[in-house]
Amino acid sequence: MKDKLFVVKIGGALIDDEKLLDQFLEQFAGIQEKKILVHGGGKLATTLADKLGITQQLINGRRITDKATLDIVAMVYAGSINKNIVSKLQQRNCNALGLSGADANVIQAKKRNHPEIDFGFVGDIDEGSVHKKMISYFLYLDLVPVFSAITHDKNGNLLNTNADTIASIIAQALTEKYDVELLYCFDKEGVLEDVDNPDSIIKSVSQEDFSILKEEGKLHKGILPKLENALGAIKNNVNKVFLIKETELKNHIENHHAGTQICL
Amino acid sequence: MKDKLFVVKIGGALIDDEKLLDQFLEQFAGIQEKKILVHGGGKLATTLADKLGITQQLINGRRITDKATLDIVAMVYAGSINKNIVSKLQQRNCNALGLSGADANVIQAKKRNHPEIDFGFVGDIDEGSVHKKMISYFLYLDLVPVFSAITHDKNGNLLNTNADTIASIIAQALTEKYDVELLYCFDKEGVLEDVDNPDSIIKSVSQEDFSILKEEGKLHKGILPKLENALGAIKNNVNKVFLIKETELKNHIENHHAGTQICL
Repeated sequence: MKDKLFVVKIGGALIDDEKLLDQFLEQFAGIQEKKILVHGGGKLATTLADKLGITQQLINGRRITDKATLDIVAMVYAGSINKNIVSKLQQRNCNALGLSGADANVIQAKKRNHPEIDFGFVGDIDEGSVHKKMISYFLYLDLVPVFSAITHDKNGNLLNTNADTIASIIAQALTEKYDVELLYCFDKEGVLEDVDNPDSIIKSVSQEDFSILKEEGKLHKGILPKLENALGAIKNNVNKVFLIKETELKNHIENHHAGTQICL
Repeated sequence: MKDKLFVVKIGGALIDDEKLLDQFLEQFAGIQEKKILVHGGGKLATTLADKLGITQQLINGRRITDKATLDIVAMVYAGSINKNIVSKLQQRNCNALGLSGADANVIQAKKRNHPEIDFGFVGDIDEGSVHKKMISYFLYLDLVPVFSAITHDKNGNLLNTNADTIASIIAQALTEKYDVELLYCFDKEGVLEDVDNPDSIIKSVSQEDFSILKEEGKLHKGILPKLENALGAIKNNVNKVFLIKETELKNHIENHHAGTQICL
């Protein structure tokens, strides 16, 4: 039987709230099985860019990661946020190892190639981007990898990469060796029919449900890429995928229910 | 027979000069034996602090690392500089793994305890601070650890730590398992009798020589802590210790001479 592995993704709102982050990390550190944490950014990168007078580049309404923005994002994600989370986990006797994709070449991305828009230093990844053997070694050493959303192209460039996608791709890459459960933790109870009503949780979402919900315009914008990444994982041998509220991590793991389950 | 291990320290002036840094990393990546890189900061942290209006705190003429300064230093050292060096080494097929002391708990420091001055978030380390087993695992996996000068106290605090000291302590900690050579790379040819004359290299410096040179006021201020750390290493079973010019790394390793050798 394969060992269980939790791949847990957290986002910006949690990272910006120190008290909430501490509570979450307490729950995360308490997971007895093998585990990986993937974190996005928070407001800090934007705040810092504003203070330094670096303006957000937009082309046709799409965000561009120019060199100045990349420098900020690398500092904040891989430096500030990542090392703070790692030290907070170490405090809780959880042997965290902070990683960007460049470290030990664990995630090698391709600079986005778009026919019309140059997105700058943005990296796209697929399941083949992940150096699964190295990550398995780290897990074998009882380390807890903590991934920031920074990858590299092996040509000396760091690349800004979507954290939801990183979580999904890592989960997919490790299914050969582990029984993987992927958890997207965010500030809602799950996928909601009515975004203002926490009781309106949709208990499960399949690809078909997703298409219908999307067509009916029932999904708020922020949740679309999360659901696409979640569905990508369940289609590619990840055993279980859930979207849950950040404060419900412990409850979810102990009682096997909370949030929205993603199904085939 | 023990395997050879090079512990190589580089400083700020090199990090600030991209062309020189690339040349250096090319030489470093070419080292065939096991190796570890330790880097200091550069001007970037000061520049960033200035831009953000964070002023350097001084108490009795001693630099203090307050929380705002620590945040900057963690971002710049463990994020920007460390990840850039790692990605540049990956480009050169050198499987670098960027580490702060918090990552995998590799260096656990103590917040400096001084009877008169509160230095803030400054960490002191000794040979016992290093998790040598974990670093040995990384070396066994053919990884090349790249250390920034950020450690932690396992109470959730990151700490600013002297990079020369980190290099010395890591070298000392790994002598049981490896035949360690410690190289302090900087912008001078070695220890110079006359700081303006590169031909005035002192070929070897022992503890006794050091005391005499220091008494005679012949050592420029910047080199004192470097020499103290170098002497600490040679006294504690590090096999060879040199101070060399950054551009001479390859020459030193291939031809076994360059710079100043530190002796018992």
